[in-house]
Amino acid sequence: MAGSPSRAAGRRLQLPLLCLFLQGATAVLFAVFVRYNHKTDAALWHRGNHSNADNEFYFRYPSFQDVHAMVFVGFGFLMVFLQRYGFSSVGFTFLLAAFALQWSTLVQGFLHSFHSGHIHVGVESMINADFCAGAVLISFGAVLGKTGPAQLLLMALLEVVLFGINEFVLLHLLGVRDAGGSMTIHTFGAYFGLVLSRVLYRPQLEKSKHRQGSVYHSDLFAMIGTIFLWIFWPSFNSALTALGAGQHWTALNTYYSLAASTLGTFALSALVGEDGRLDMVHIQNAALAGGVVVGTSSEMMLTPFGALAAGFLAGTVSTLGYKFFTPILESKFKVQDTCGVHNLHGMPGVLGALLGVLVAGLATHEAYGDGLESVFPLIAEGQRSATSQAMLQLFGLFVTLMFASVGGGLGGLLLKLPFLDSPPDSQCYEDQVHWQVPGEHEDEAQRPLRVEEADTQA
Amino acid sequence: MAGSPSRAAGRRLQLPLLCLFLQGATAVLFAVFVRYNHKTDAALWHRGNHSNADNEFYFRYPSFQDVHAMVFVGFGFLMVFLQRYGFSSVGFTFLLAAFALQWSTLVQGFLHSFHSGHIHVGVESMINADFCAGAVLISFGAVLGKTGPAQLLLMALLEVVLFGINEFVLLHLLGVRDAGGSMTIHTFGAYFGLVLSRVLYRPQLEKSKHRQGSVYHSDLFAMIGTIFLWIFWPSFNSALTALGAGQHWTALNTYYSLAASTLGTFALSALVGEDGRLDMVHIQNAALAGGVVVGTSSEMMLTPFGALAAGFLAGTVSTLGYKFFTPILESKFKVQDTCGVHNLHGMPGVLGALLGVLVAGLATHEAYGDGLESVFPLIAEGQRSATSQAMLQLFGLFVTLMFASVGGGLGGLLLKLPFLDSPPDSQCYEDQVHWQVPGEHEDEAQRPLRVEEADTQA
Amino acid sequence: MAGSPSRAAGRRLQLPLLCLFLQGATAVLFAVFVRYNHKTDAALWHRGNHSNADNEFYFRYPSFQDVHAMVFVGFGFLMVFLQRYGFSSVGFTFLLAAFALQWSTLVQGFLHSFHSGHIHVGVESMINADFCAGAVLISFGAVLGKTGPAQLLLMALLEVVLFGINEFVLLHLLGVRDAGGSMTIHTFGAYFGLVLSRVLYRPQLEKSKHRQGSVYHSDLFAMIGTIFLWIFWPSFNSALTALGAGQHWTALNTYYSLAASTLGTFALSALVGEDGRLDMVHIQNAALAGGVVVGTSSEMMLTPFGALAAGFLAGTVSTLGYKFFTPILESKFKVQDTCGVHNLHGMPGVLGALLGVLVAGLATHEAYGDGLESVFPLIAEGQRSATSQAMLQLFGLFVTLMFASVGGGLGGLLLKLPFLDSPPDSQCYEDQVHWQVPGEHEDEAQRPLRVEEADTQA
Repeated sequence: MAGSPSRAAGRRLQLPLLCLFLQGATAVLFAVFVRYNHKTDAALWHRGNHSNADNEFYFRYPSFQDVHAMVFVGFGFLMVFLQRYGFSSVGFTFLLAAFALQWSTLVQGFLHSFHSGHIHVGVESMINADFCAGAVLISFGAVLGKTGPAQLLLMALLEVVLFGINEFVLLHLLGVRDAGGSMTIHTFGAYFGLVLSRVLYRPQLEKSKHRQGSVYHSDLFAMIGTIFLWIFWPSFNSALTALGAGQHWTALNTYYSLAASTLGTFALSALVGEDGRLDMVHIQNAALAGGVVVGTSSEMMLTPFGALAAGFLAGTVSTLGYKFFTPILESKFKVQDTCGVHNLHGMPGVLGALLGVLVAGLATHEAYGDGLESVFPLIAEGQRSATSQAMLQLFGLFVTLMFASVGGGLGGLLLKLPFLDSPPDSQCYEDQVHWQVPGEHEDEAQRPLRVEEADTQA
Repeated sequence: MAGSPSRAAGRRLQLPLLCLFLQGATAVLFAVFVRYNHKTDAALWHRGNHSNADNEFYFRYPSFQDVHAMVFVGFGFLMVFLQRYGFSSVGFTFLLAAFALQWSTLVQGFLHSFHSGHIHVGVESMINADFCAGAVLISFGAVLGKTGPAQLLLMALLEVVLFGINEFVLLHLLGVRDAGGSMTIHTFGAYFGLVLSRVLYRPQLEKSKHRQGSVYHSDLFAMIGTIFLWIFWPSFNSALTALGAGQHWTALNTYYSLAASTLGTFALSALVGEDGRLDMVHIQNAALAGGVVVGTSSEMMLTPFGALAAGFLAGTVSTLGYKFFTPILESKFKVQDTCGVHNLHGMPGVLGALLGVLVAGLATHEAYGDGLESVFPLIAEGQRSATSQAMLQLFGLFVTLMFASVGGGLGGLLLKLPFLDSPPDSQCYEDQVHWQVPGEHEDEAQRPLRVEEADTQA
Repeated sequence: MAGSPSRAAGRRLQLPLLCLFLQGATAVLFAVFVRYNHKTDAALWHRGNHSNADNEFYFRYPSFQDVHAMVFVGFGFLMVFLQRYGFSSVGFTFLLAAFALQWSTLVQGFLHSFHSGHIHVGVESMINADFCAGAVLISFGAVLGKTGPAQLLLMALLEVVLFGINEFVLLHLLGVRDAGGSMTIHTFGAYFGLVLSRVLYRPQLEKSKHRQGSVYHSDLFAMIGTIFLWIFWPSFNSALTALGAGQHWTALNTYYSLAASTLGTFALSALVGEDGRLDMVHIQNAALAGGVVVGTSSEMMLTPFGALAAGFLAGTVSTLGYKFFTPILESKFKVQDTCGVHNLHGMPGVLGALLGVLVAGLATHEAYGDGLESVFPLIAEGQRSATSQAMLQLFGLFVTLMFASVGGGLGGLLLKLPFLDSPPDSQCYEDQVHWQVPGEHEDEAQRPLRVEEADTQA
């Protein structure tokens, strides 16, 4: 943290002032625009003649809680694998998601549920906001350890807006189906983060190489994240699907896909591992690809076999990506992808979108019966053939890749603004830049910040 | 652990005998008094003409499970931050809560659901019992590290009774609303613990100073507690609110409040931190104040903006409390508040009660429509004006503070009984006093208990 | 890892090839046999005239998620207590359960829900499959640290089949009630694992003695497992019980039983502990015995007092088992029970079966009213007296013990196949045999695998 004292003082104020500004602006916008919807408001709800059990809360809130656990526990701890970046991983996840869900309530609200001058909120908007926070955290994974919290908040500020617009284009303008977000969440979040990481490329990053690995217990903490993501993914994909059987089959498909991706991951990890030994990085990440890959198609009649096959493929591809593609991504494409989001969210997200194209193209009245209305309303109403639905699904993928790439590029330029605080190359992946860190043992004094090189990075 | 051998033998029997006695007495009282209620009993339920979906289980059990996770995972791990007190933190949480929920089932049952000679139990009594256990754990946080398990069980024995009476006075006699327990749980638990800690003041506590901090991984374990408390708090506040839209808006309000308290906490922590660096203690605790501060008002028409504002205020105040008030509390008021419960539960609880006064005072038939009946039945029935409801809410806060203070004082005297086993000043915050502790590394033998000073504390 | 290079190459291929084969075979069988049931299929569900709320998903999915968390988080982390076997504990739990749930969907499907050439799946089959995975993980606990992943997959392959047959005999042929699986899950899983461990007896296991204990943080990780198992156990026992009040009273009974077993465990652990100090092994395990012991009877009118008494007894017996019986089990019976599954699942499972005999024998039309139909349909329909139900419950226990013992013996012989990779005696409880393990500190290079003795075990 070099520089003149006044500059240092300016830098230390960046995070608090940005937090205060963003929270203040959000609160003002909430005051003006956000209102309870008719299932959440005391007066509106009781005006209708409902039984309590009809309130959407009971259909969606348990799923919401599972999604909420995935966003804060799952993503947060999954990134704790770095030996000296656990505070930042779980802490900045906390900060980013807490901001993103508020900001996304506004952005998604303006685009999806803006009626008579107000945004109307309830359990669906909570789930949607958490989904958007998930996309932001995926992007965070690509730049983990190389960005300060003020930079990350600005990234979220931009990404949430683009996420909302992309989602609006896909779901509302194109009529694309993507309940679990293979495209809108995973593909978008991954490529936004990867392009952003490309723009922030650090040629001297090997100065922090010794902190880039894990230690034994940090890998165990990361497994907390992995397992909570894995167990709750069926709720993630089914959180917003059609009530009744719709949520049921979506959860079931996801459950099978994840199980198969786990076996695929173990098989491939041992196969490509040194001496046949398993690699924790693969298990922590690639086993989750089964959830990503059915993000679009799990709400369709994928069949249990289809779910197994998709999950197995995703686990396999993801593991091979960690082993063979991540090094190339850095050396050839100059993308430093800390968590390997390309392997966990990028490739499986694209595969998931393509699987959605396939399964949508195979949709028939026979297979879905009267349930076709709830999955493909435009096909059911005769406005669209299955083939044109498939084509639009494919077009949705291209739109997403475009929004993500352009957005990530813009984000990278934004984060390179020279006055923004960013850790120097030699202090990446190090909590002490951002946190007061205790010693590791009771008899150890607080370790001084080692600033071998006082390089600051613009 | 000084003293004559026979005294030592007497001390080592305190915990087992107390456990056996309390469990035995509880079991006898259960045999005599506790019965399934009409939604839980096979014969009674099937006598009615219900559809299965009408059973209250389906409306409340998912919330119960979230509350249950908060009590045992959340509180338990939140307190693991101490470097050498993790076994005790999570273990005594386990013991205390497991006892408190049984004992509270009896106490709350006698006061709230005693009909024709029996206490009737079901999912509501499970939630209420867990709520009471939560209050006991808040008090535990104030004396963490300075009390033995037998002392803590006696504390719970007393506190559960006073909790039940205070709750009865507020909810049943005064008609106060407090669904998420800003008063009955947080204010009560905090000030009970703080006064108790005052009575147990240890002037020589700096002998254990070197164990009072955290280590890197203990802070990560504590974040498990933080995050689970944070994500499930919407379920906590809504667990017992009105079915239908009532649970819906309560959860939504809490969700927003927590998000804003997180941003407020990060802002203030960086602002007051050394070199602008964040402090894990703030993040672990103050970010949760948003759940506490809407404990009373989240079941009311707080509005989404109101929730954000309240949460932000609570996060801010709580962080400042940790930074500036905790040291004063010890130096001036001789209150050694290990976990800072004054900052997380005390001040935000009082603020939450006052916010409840305000929001209750603003209640109108217009804003609540027919939902007024479910939130303020006495106002809806015309027995009480909004203003008098507000005044009674305020009076409820004073009653709570009185019960908590007198109770904490009595509790302190009880725990000072000279024959009760208590760790010496030099052995506070040390698991080895109570647990068989393994070495930290595989080649390290079990560390001998360092008894530099054989001081025993009365 | 001695042997000729080609043999070593053969060994390193065992895990990947077995994973690929098992996943491939499972997928083929899914393609041929597995179909959505009428509550999960789009066309079938919408053919009926249902309200969305009628879908079984809403009654059972929250319980499923809790069970899912228990299987993957609970069992996985509970076994992380070993100092150098955390990756394997949580990783092999992940692998085994992900395979077992697929394989069990097939086996249980053929036996329970095979109609017109197809297995029909939905939320009930998900819960049942997870239950079976739980039994496999119980057996894993008995051989933890002494078996390779390929061996474990073969164990699961066999055990799932025998689990399914035993369950079919009990529930369908004998009409035995066992909703929470005191017999079918706990007794079966425990004795299968114990007999298998007996067959795999390693007289030279003390060569790995130094790795058999825990370290401070591994014990804290294990408490994550314990607490998640503990809090969600009410959902486990009630996941498949009768809708309406049935799930309600089952959850309530389990809740009380667990609370009492916790107090019993703390009492006994302190009583038998050195210097009255508590032992983490007891708290981590025996406190859970209260969930096991009411696995059969919690769906019956056990009464709250009955639940407390049963739980207390189980906690007590289990703690004494850890203290006094585990050493005898190894020295006299040559059963090396790594996790003490005999104490947590074996004895409490048998006790639970016997308690089921008792409570079933006391069933009356008076006590259950019209609810008798949902718990004991054969008694309600007059086809069976309560006494004969009790006798059949007892017979079910013997059947289970027989299936478990014979199956465990067969399993042991299978796992002793000489070409199967198994860690040598000096490398038991060591992650490095199976995993690429990082150093413990940032400045520490990857520790070389210490092969003091190059003994390979047949």
